[in-house]
Amino acid sequence: MAGVPIFRTDIEPSWIDYNGHLRDAYYCLIVSFGVDALMDRIGLDEACRSSTGCTLYTLEMHIHFLREIRSTATVVTDVRILGADRKRIHAAFDLRCDPATESAATAEVMLLQVRQAHGVASEPFAPAIVAAIDELQRACADLPPPSHGSRRMQLPQR
Amino acid sequence: MAGVPIFRTDIEPSWIDYNGHLRDAYYCLIVSFGVDALMDRIGLDEACRSSTGCTLYTLEMHIHFLREIRSTATVVTDVRILGADRKRIHAAFDLRCDPATESAATAEVMLLQVRQAHGVASEPFAPAIVAAIDELQRACADLPPPSHGSRRMQLPQR
Repeated sequence: MAGVPIFRTDIEPSWIDYNGHLRDAYYCLIVSFGVDALMDRIGLDEACRSSTGCTLYTLEMHIHFLREIRSTATVVTDVRILGADRKRIHAAFDLRCDPATESAATAEVMLLQVRQAHGVASEPFAPAIVAAIDELQRACADLPPPSHGSRRMQLPQR
Repeated sequence: MAGVPIFRTDIEPSWIDYNGHLRDAYYCLIVSFGVDALMDRIGLDEACRSSTGCTLYTLEMHIHFLREIRSTATVVTDVRILGADRKRIHAAFDLRCDPATESAATAEVMLLQVRQAHGVASEPFAPAIVAAIDELQRACADLPPPSHGSRRMQLPQR
């Protein structure tokens, strides 16, 4: 999978587990930082969040761990918009260790815009945000589907 | 969902994000610690790992974020074995904020036993581990399926 480069990070020593590689949850943290970068990209940045009370909540995440990531790696994260509606974004993230080209992990997330005021309620995107989401989606529209996407996990029953 | 209580944790201040609640990836970290506790429970503990070179790698994780978790929460994690074969465990985790009974998140993971020696290769479970997995699976066999399981995520295309 490929997409639009959105985030780049080194690996913190505390992210490495007893198996000698990046702990699964810290792949998720890199995806989470990728969502932050996506928010900045479409205009839902800190200034917008504080002035409108709007932000994104993650509803679901499905991640495939494809390759080990070592403490010395620099991880590059690409994003693609797989779908969107008035309040939701379905995005895919691809993590790879620079300069390798193969994916170390792929993740899909479903994001919902909410307004945090008195309680939390879902909220349609403003027109400028919709336009930015559209533009990002069009930039990746011709790419093939992600190789490892969300799906039902199942093993044969014993 | 319910299952066998396997892990309990308070929330670290650094796990809270700009939305004022537990960042999505730290739900995943609690699941990851739950996997560690599962490994201890079935005999794949640190002593076993260091003597055999065997450990579990996470292949996939699908998580549903159902409720916000605040900094003051104590999170209880239950586990269920949904399936297993010679080398893999399909497990479900349920996170809730003690003493609440509703789920704050549900997650499914697919785990593969590998041996880390010269390289990494998949490895069948030893008989004692198989027996421990079976026992844990039987303990939850009569529970209904998880309410929010892994699935294909999709929005209507615009």
